[in-house]
Amino acid sequence: MRRALELAATAGVPLGPNPRVGCVILAPDGTTLVEGFHEGAGTKHAEAAAIATAQERGIDLTGATAVVTLEPCNHTGRTGPCALALIGAGVGRVVFAQSDPNPEAAGGAQTLRDAGIDVEHGLMAAESEDLNRVWSFALTHQRPFVTWKLATSIDGRSAASDGTSKWISSRAARIDTHRLRGLADTILVGTNTVEVDDPQLTVRDADDRPIADQPLRAVMGMRELPARSRVFDGSAGTVHLRTHEPAEALAQLFARERRHVFLEGGPTLAAAFFRAGLVDEVVTYVAPVLLGAGRNAVDDLGIHTITDAAHLRVTDVTVIEADGEDTCVRITMTTHGTALHGLSTHEED
Amino acid sequence: MRRALELAATAGVPLGPNPRVGCVILAPDGTTLVEGFHEGAGTKHAEAAAIATAQERGIDLTGATAVVTLEPCNHTGRTGPCALALIGAGVGRVVFAQSDPNPEAAGGAQTLRDAGIDVEHGLMAAESEDLNRVWSFALTHQRPFVTWKLATSIDGRSAASDGTSKWISSRAARIDTHRLRGLADTILVGTNTVEVDDPQLTVRDADDRPIADQPLRAVMGMRELPARSRVFDGSAGTVHLRTHEPAEALAQLFARERRHVFLEGGPTLAAAFFRAGLVDEVVTYVAPVLLGAGRNAVDDLGIHTITDAAHLRVTDVTVIEADGEDTCVRITMTTHGTALHGLSTHEED
Repeated sequence: MRRALELAATAGVPLGPNPRVGCVILAPDGTTLVEGFHEGAGTKHAEAAAIATAQERGIDLTGATAVVTLEPCNHTGRTGPCALALIGAGVGRVVFAQSDPNPEAAGGAQTLRDAGIDVEHGLMAAESEDLNRVWSFALTHQRPFVTWKLATSIDGRSAASDGTSKWISSRAARIDTHRLRGLADTILVGTNTVEVDDPQLTVRDADDRPIADQPLRAVMGMRELPARSRVFDGSAGTVHLRTHEPAEALAQLFARERRHVFLEGGPTLAAAFFRAGLVDEVVTYVAPVLLGAGRNAVDDLGIHTITDAAHLRVTDVTVIEADGEDTCVRITMTTHGTALHGLSTHEED
Repeated sequence: MRRALELAATAGVPLGPNPRVGCVILAPDGTTLVEGFHEGAGTKHAEAAAIATAQERGIDLTGATAVVTLEPCNHTGRTGPCALALIGAGVGRVVFAQSDPNPEAAGGAQTLRDAGIDVEHGLMAAESEDLNRVWSFALTHQRPFVTWKLATSIDGRSAASDGTSKWISSRAARIDTHRLRGLADTILVGTNTVEVDDPQLTVRDADDRPIADQPLRAVMGMRELPARSRVFDGSAGTVHLRTHEPAEALAQLFARERRHVFLEGGPTLAAAFFRAGLVDEVVTYVAPVLLGAGRNAVDDLGIHTITDAAHLRVTDVTVIEADGEDTCVRITMTTHGTALHGLSTHEED
């Protein structure tokens, strides 16, 4: 299973709507017959990749044990169901780590058992879930995981009083932001941000070149967008979600197979997501800058007294420095398992 | 000189108004005859301590070389001038690191030369200045070094909208704040903070017991203070500085031999010090908390556009964590040698 997890981790992220999965097929004597991993939507699942390799090489899998990091799927999507492929290959035993949280794809274990195959699961399940943290969350909750990104001065301003914000943080921090954008599959802002800042919302690498697989650009709000807005420049896909409701916007994005939303909207949109309990992670870049006035990072959250403050949990602190530039501090926090007094919680009932 | 610096560093901080100084006296053959260091205001200077030890032990210092981290003083304060003491002891050569930035005490090198003693200086001067960073700054600029401390939510609020702020940051961060307070010799707030928050402004250790040497509590502003304010509880010295002017307040404190002010006032006082160019260091505790509304960390600084933002330089980032508590991030910044566009600069002419 450790090797299967290694194989799973081989794949880069994001994989479109799909998780990272690895598979190792062992002979009855424990020797490895063949391996496979999933390389992203539209390509073979890990089990299918391993079986295909076995067929190419003329390796007989009869009675073999398939070790997979995720429960073999039971549905026909862009590729056929893996449970049937394993049955067809004649494997005698399947050991998987994480159960499939996707209700559409789940049930593979039962299908295998019904075919008389010995099935075990749970071994290193936590490691597989961790590897697919965002995907597992999205499938379990049937909505994309939401990362809110902000960049502020030490006095919590995200723009000066005239609205200018280029750039509070350093070039190194901006490069880092683009890297994080590229780990998501959707960048979400409000119509107001498009009207006021007219951002392009693409992902560029450290050399300022656009990366190959751009996240979807999503703009939410009821107002019409200027046709000349840079989000319509064709350099990446763009969708206008005609709603003010965070839950509705996320439902629309999930229906488009979006798993990870990178929220870069202004203080109003951020507050709406917090009030709805729909922020899972916060990444803030704190720049050693003072403004004294200007745009707040987040609008009113309905918190009036300190005991009602929304407490998050710090998961990472990274100092971002580069020669001749302001050193910034990136703080990553999770809202999961923390007290959000006075705010909605994440748990759907 | 390295040994003399080690001796100097032996002394704790703060030493009241005095610097950390070490002294080693060597025989002509290079062997160490005697050592000394300064233990704080009212005690012997390092050279005097070494000479006294030599007298106790009957060691003849005639023709010896005194190695001192700071230029021997030339004035009679609580103790006599060290330059004369060295002349009296018969040393033949004096090597010192840092020149004395205190105009009252300087001139010791010339006094020694006039007495026919061979004098060299500059060796490891930077190390001595670093050891006495705050003192060197204060004596050079003839005003106390100012550290502004703040604690904010990630959206830059220092209190909730009802004024409550106990506690934005964790207990571990509060203990750390008390440690930093104890490194200063003065804690400064405005009359408004005393009226609204009624803080005690003493330094307590990790067990919540007051430390022995409390900094001076200074309150600035024209308004009368309530006699029952906790700053008048007798647990430490307190002074009411009847001025609105940061420069005037610092001049009064410097006249009281204060070298390091820990500024804990509200946003108005902080802004006044920034506008006057009288903040040297900023220490901020960023807590993983969202408020969405409430008291700003600092008031208007007259900055309207991002290119005028006050840029500081990060000198330290420390993650402050303790079991079962919010992890906080402490960011320390200097305003020296950084661009404070639109704000006054520190350099007096």
